[in-house]
Amino acid sequence: MTKDMKDIVALCKRRGFIFPASDIYGGLNGFWDYGPLGTELKNNLRDRWWKDMVITPPIGPDGAPIEIVGVDSSIIQNPRCWEASGHIGGFNDPMVDCKESKKRYRADHVVVYLPKDGEGVAVSFDKDAEDDEIEKRLKKLTKKTPADFETAKLDQVDVAKFANIIGPDVKEAGTLTEPRQFNMMFHTYVGAAAGDENKAYLRPETCAGIFLNFKNVVDSSRVKVPFGIAQVGKAFRNEVTPRNFVFRSREFEQMELEWFCEEEDVPMWFDFWVEQRTNFWLSLGLPKSSLHFLDVPKDDLAHYSSRTIDVEYQFPFAAPDFDELEGIAHRGCFDLTQHAEFSGQKLDYFDQPNNRRFVPHVIEPSTGLTRGVLALLCEAYTVDENRPSGVYMNFHPSMAPKKAAILPLTAKEDHVPTAQKLYMDLRDEFVVDLDIKQNIGKRYARQDEIGTPYCFTIDNDTLADGTVTVRERNTMSQERIHLDKVKDFLREKIKG
Amino acid sequence: MTKDMKDIVALCKRRGFIFPASDIYGGLNGFWDYGPLGTELKNNLRDRWWKDMVITPPIGPDGAPIEIVGVDSSIIQNPRCWEASGHIGGFNDPMVDCKESKKRYRADHVVVYLPKDGEGVAVSFDKDAEDDEIEKRLKKLTKKTPADFETAKLDQVDVAKFANIIGPDVKEAGTLTEPRQFNMMFHTYVGAAAGDENKAYLRPETCAGIFLNFKNVVDSSRVKVPFGIAQVGKAFRNEVTPRNFVFRSREFEQMELEWFCEEEDVPMWFDFWVEQRTNFWLSLGLPKSSLHFLDVPKDDLAHYSSRTIDVEYQFPFAAPDFDELEGIAHRGCFDLTQHAEFSGQKLDYFDQPNNRRFVPHVIEPSTGLTRGVLALLCEAYTVDENRPSGVYMNFHPSMAPKKAAILPLTAKEDHVPTAQKLYMDLRDEFVVDLDIKQNIGKRYARQDEIGTPYCFTIDNDTLADGTVTVRERNTMSQERIHLDKVKDFLREKIKG
Repeated sequence: MTKDMKDIVALCKRRGFIFPASDIYGGLNGFWDYGPLGTELKNNLRDRWWKDMVITPPIGPDGAPIEIVGVDSSIIQNPRCWEASGHIGGFNDPMVDCKESKKRYRADHVVVYLPKDGEGVAVSFDKDAEDDEIEKRLKKLTKKTPADFETAKLDQVDVAKFANIIGPDVKEAGTLTEPRQFNMMFHTYVGAAAGDENKAYLRPETCAGIFLNFKNVVDSSRVKVPFGIAQVGKAFRNEVTPRNFVFRSREFEQMELEWFCEEEDVPMWFDFWVEQRTNFWLSLGLPKSSLHFLDVPKDDLAHYSSRTIDVEYQFPFAAPDFDELEGIAHRGCFDLTQHAEFSGQKLDYFDQPNNRRFVPHVIEPSTGLTRGVLALLCEAYTVDENRPSGVYMNFHPSMAPKKAAILPLTAKEDHVPTAQKLYMDLRDEFVVDLDIKQNIGKRYARQDEIGTPYCFTIDNDTLADGTVTVRERNTMSQERIHLDKVKDFLREKIKG
Repeated sequence: MTKDMKDIVALCKRRGFIFPASDIYGGLNGFWDYGPLGTELKNNLRDRWWKDMVITPPIGPDGAPIEIVGVDSSIIQNPRCWEASGHIGGFNDPMVDCKESKKRYRADHVVVYLPKDGEGVAVSFDKDAEDDEIEKRLKKLTKKTPADFETAKLDQVDVAKFANIIGPDVKEAGTLTEPRQFNMMFHTYVGAAAGDENKAYLRPETCAGIFLNFKNVVDSSRVKVPFGIAQVGKAFRNEVTPRNFVFRSREFEQMELEWFCEEEDVPMWFDFWVEQRTNFWLSLGLPKSSLHFLDVPKDDLAHYSSRTIDVEYQFPFAAPDFDELEGIAHRGCFDLTQHAEFSGQKLDYFDQPNNRRFVPHVIEPSTGLTRGVLALLCEAYTVDENRPSGVYMNFHPSMAPKKAAILPLTAKEDHVPTAQKLYMDLRDEFVVDLDIKQNIGKRYARQDEIGTPYCFTIDNDTLADGTVTVRERNTMSQERIHLDKVKDFLREKIKG
């Protein structure tokens, strides 16, 4: 059954995963807040990535654990940093405005249907437009079918043809302007005066903060090439058309690793990281069939990159296609070389045993933390008409915001103290929910919707024989186990 | 022995706790990056606060655990939010400029020495100026002693007297301008045009994001008053004079709890939170003698607050005085009332059992995460001339970035594989460092400087009888224990 983004967005708000930012003020386009459960889910993903990278990094090809350290750099940096990285000069998307609809579009997000015979108007669509919608609109505007057209992205179409194109949200041709550059970095002013000399930027990606600290990390810690520096943090892009829930938002979070190695070892480490990162997502419950590996064509690569593999996930808004979840890029020695040139500092590495200096090459597995959360939410969302909630969230137990719920059958009698005692016994080791009031069916339904793998119900039998009912989320099966066994049960199910 | 901030800043850079942001570009005033160890230290403090608040909240006065949920809201919100909170109208510090030195000062950070007899010039100083420096400069400029003057903060001095005041960095009177307002929020523009209609702000505190989400949290989760909403995140203030390392920086992190309760219960909960928060800092190793509790005088309270207690720490730059680490404020119902008025949304709470609506009152324990890190660093810094490093970091084991170091005595023989095996045995449960090369004295010195509580050394005896040397950081005492006992040893020392 296909999943509808609208339903997922609605559940996220209803159950406290994700809210529109400034919701009471009508929101702010492209900004989202994480509610109680979304925050826990995001923290789980962040902590798992950090643990896998920094605390218990993987075993390398030589059988010994590799070395990775973490940093946490400022969102605002010296603006020279963004000259070096190319973001001030080049972090631009060509945009077109529609004089009629007053809307602005990224040129590479608009698909143009150009008549094969060169006769009549061309019609343009948002790149995510559905097939039936395209067919219907083409018929209405041109009386032709999709087969009569060839397609191209708007940024690939000769500007001379623009007068003949109908914009995505209008009915007449000739309203689109020529593409113009638009810098996607948010700017601000540091210090008292809002003048150019005080202009600074919110980072558009976290990796720059890693390259800026390369020298300080090498000088202060005992890392030796090959090694990695990891960072998790917020980044900001002034997207023209934020869309698809938190997928393309203006404030988002990244988890980035820069892996510094010798140039000759790049192919080995590139394969290593593709395998590691694939296993990461598989281990969190994203099935292989929902992932796609895009070996980015040479023409689409950033100028400094000789190879990039995008790990794509089948987000519902893209299905049956895929969209980017993580990029694994060989960045060459571009960043360190640029920052060395712009800062006048030496950013090479001294290889003591061989008494030589070199600039390491870099492989960058770069993940969207908030995109990862969205993938986990989309994957977990499971329609099931056989249960009262009509839906449950099939989170991997390690990612579920709550590992278990403790539910006294009634709020009277002795059910509550026993439930509280069990909650206190468990909460130091597991994130558990204690939910006391409401009928048990409604409480199960709520736990299904927030994706709690196990519910423990305390009833009169518990008082008599010390057993509780365990209800398993996915199967709704119930069994009774003794209170003394609950902790071991969870250890086995959640950790094992 | 007094601690010198310069030494602490130097150790932080040398060992990878904290670096100046954009260091290779000469830095950016008021911005700092956290290196490998600083990031781990900050994460430890963040995770401990989150666990104490959200995962295992304290037991309330009625013997049952209280309810707290977390959120993670955007840094950029709808600008109407800051009109409601008063930050657009009122988040201003009166500033004075010096026409001679071209420096700008916060008026309340400048202390003026006014002649008691009304004769001659007045002399002004930075509020942190040392006594001997003041005495010396007064003598030079006026030939008088401090006893001949009375003092007042510059924002309390009548502007008519400014012509008679010598600024903090000049030698002649009459160069200070009248105080002017200066909004401390960083601004940016969301969307394509940099016009007023697109102006937005970087949050100057995290708490607003909690109030904005009050309604969504109440509607989506099952919390009942009294309950709390917690948040950890970055905040930004365009400080005129960033100073004292990360204490007053322009980008910083906060950990804030808003505790919603009935007005009549405010005194009880206020005391509850002062006690909880005090115990928090004591449990992390800040001694009672380094803490000071300032019951903020009525005249200094924010207009909406009827009581605030500042938890102050004896930072070396303030000693023998104290400066703010955390504020526990009764905010009344100011925030919810303001946001309700400005948004037109009902932000009251429906008390179902009693069938009534009310606007909860709020108690806010608001902590600087980055200030907390600074307090832990300052407290840990311990001069000891009896050891090679001359200094060690006496972190509480729960806060130490590394809980233990595994050190093979030599990089040859079989010491390394045994060390690697021990490292792999421990790392899933404890954050441990494996440090292979360099002579053992230098490695101990490094672990002392990064505050690792225990070092395990693998030598020839380890190969013969399976025992390792444990070196304890503070006492430098050494004992031998069996490899099989290392995990239990750490469990007892670190967790117990």
